[in-house]
Amino acid sequence: VHVFAIVPANAAQIARIHQRAARRRDVIALAGGLPCDELFPRIALAAAFARTSADEEALQYGWPEGMRALRAWIAERLAARGIAVAAEHVIVTAGAQQALALVAGALDVDRIAVGDATYPAALAAFARSGITAVTTGAPVRYVIAGVGNPHGVDVCDRSALDGEVVIDEAYTELRFDGRDDRLVPHDSERTWRIGTLSKTLCPGLRIGWLVPPPRHHARVVADKQAADLQTCSVAQSAAIRLLATIDYDALIARARSHYAARADRLATALRRACPELRFRDPEGGFSIWVETDETGDDVALLEAAIAAGVSLDPGCTFRCDGATSHVAFRLSYSHAAMCDLDEGPRRLARALAAWRRGPRPS
Amino acid sequence: VHVFAIVPANAAQIARIHQRAARRRDVIALAGGLPCDELFPRIALAAAFARTSADEEALQYGWPEGMRALRAWIAERLAARGIAVAAEHVIVTAGAQQALALVAGALDVDRIAVGDATYPAALAAFARSGITAVTTGAPVRYVIAGVGNPHGVDVCDRSALDGEVVIDEAYTELRFDGRDDRLVPHDSERTWRIGTLSKTLCPGLRIGWLVPPPRHHARVVADKQAADLQTCSVAQSAAIRLLATIDYDALIARARSHYAARADRLATALRRACPELRFRDPEGGFSIWVETDETGDDVALLEAAIAAGVSLDPGCTFRCDGATSHVAFRLSYSHAAMCDLDEGPRRLARALAAWRRGPRPS
Repeated sequence: VHVFAIVPANAAQIARIHQRAARRRDVIALAGGLPCDELFPRIALAAAFARTSADEEALQYGWPEGMRALRAWIAERLAARGIAVAAEHVIVTAGAQQALALVAGALDVDRIAVGDATYPAALAAFARSGITAVTTGAPVRYVIAGVGNPHGVDVCDRSALDGEVVIDEAYTELRFDGRDDRLVPHDSERTWRIGTLSKTLCPGLRIGWLVPPPRHHARVVADKQAADLQTCSVAQSAAIRLLATIDYDALIARARSHYAARADRLATALRRACPELRFRDPEGGFSIWVETDETGDDVALLEAAIAAGVSLDPGCTFRCDGATSHVAFRLSYSHAAMCDLDEGPRRLARALAAWRRGPRPS
Repeated sequence: VHVFAIVPANAAQIARIHQRAARRRDVIALAGGLPCDELFPRIALAAAFARTSADEEALQYGWPEGMRALRAWIAERLAARGIAVAAEHVIVTAGAQQALALVAGALDVDRIAVGDATYPAALAAFARSGITAVTTGAPVRYVIAGVGNPHGVDVCDRSALDGEVVIDEAYTELRFDGRDDRLVPHDSERTWRIGTLSKTLCPGLRIGWLVPPPRHHARVVADKQAADLQTCSVAQSAAIRLLATIDYDALIARARSHYAARADRLATALRRACPELRFRDPEGGFSIWVETDETGDDVALLEAAIAAGVSLDPGCTFRCDGATSHVAFRLSYSHAAMCDLDEGPRRLARALAAWRRGPRPS
């Protein structure tokens, strides 16, 4: 058993800082990338949960690949977007994160290309399977389709997608323009496709999916079984009921306009409070990726931000080498109160000024 | 990335046979080791699930180590059995299986001692982390405390527990004599303790736990986060409510007498129908481990059994080397109807006779 590096080396330190900040009501949370609680379909969820205890399947052990009705819904949803996969090839996972961990365990490569910045927990999953994430030049590529995380815009270079590819569709349906067709057609022989209900429905269910190339299906199902036997039956059963009763497209349309308004609000406030920062207006998803030409310790920037009453996700956590060649950070508009999206950037401006002055003698 | 062998090599074949058999109403299921549906506290579960949609925490992302109230309940439950662990050291997992996978990922050894036969999915978890399971003579030992699986009796050699030990308490509280103190005291420096609600409450929740040695805690939490971010919030929230309202000790007492009656019924029927088989009367848990002095292909025995209308778990799946030096199998009395516990062994006798005759010309 090899102990692989945790990426970045200071991940545990950053996690501790975030946990402390999360307990403080006076810190505006622009860290984390949580979906907005107001969008969860609570009444429909209550009805779905209430009925799970009458469902024999919901309380008992199930098969590792997940419930048939849920796999069928996933396959149909993909088919509606022009992606032809059979329900037999879909594996229900404990969120998209477990799908990433399963892909990492099944890929027979030692490097994966991830671009300049990407989802930190994907880097963690790759590292644990001994796969080195690199910015470019690897036999497999990991892409977050439609809306990059942390970028908030589509950063996928389609010309680089001619090899094996892991397509993470966590935010694909949350493009503000509704264009979710940007990476089809689906080449089943070389595509690992990952999706989730966490961003559109609610993360607490922990329902995601993985569609591996069919030749890898049996092996991945066995890996899934070794990992946790099966995805939570109660959650699967509730999701099946819920998806049969709600208008999922309407839910997504509402989420798009909700997040688009927040993205606009944060971008406007940020441009006003911190005119020196570089960022692109989000095309979807939950966050803005801010880049600077400055160098320095971005964990110190996180600490300065929290001292000023606002949290952020430091750029090093998104880099495959944990590097801070230039300081960057992610700001999430998805979960904060609307008024906090105005105040957050003002606090950030003070934090940046303090951070630029460097540590005060203590 | 190394592709480790699936243990045993024919696991996928056996899984396919079981999946086909599970769809047949005419096959008495003595395979699988499922808890009895009649024991699930459905009314209390319904009430607990119904309230999760009003709980902000139940629908949103949470911390990887799990909800504080659930970790506190687990620590208190262990404390009541004389095992002193702090709630901060408990990690809520997606069932005991994920706890096993996390232990396998964190152990810095290449061999683990598991005894003559053990839980197949533990073997799968160890294999995936590159750890070779051996019957004896390894720096770490895996034990299923109180009631061995598949043995149905306590097979733990206490004199062999002087090194690092992984204690799986899946069935500990389901000893028919109620003695759950057999492996304390807890030496926190060298003990990885695993438990679950799956056998006592219901498996569909997928709630288990791991208490690693405190020095490994931070690393295991990071591994858990990389594996699936966190255990299903809805299930955690429901479990917290449920455990606060039901009499868990009464639930377990009822389960013990329920399973004890079934164990007795199956053992009696088995002795009558197949007097040549060797087994010990269960002391707890869900199953009887049957050994023979015969050699042969135990997957062929499984197929003969299903042809005769009864399923079983072939012994090779429980052996660390997949070996069938002598044929053995597990019969579970936990989930079959009471009357089927009489008929199952009669069908098994016919299956054994057919299997001993060998394959018929087709």
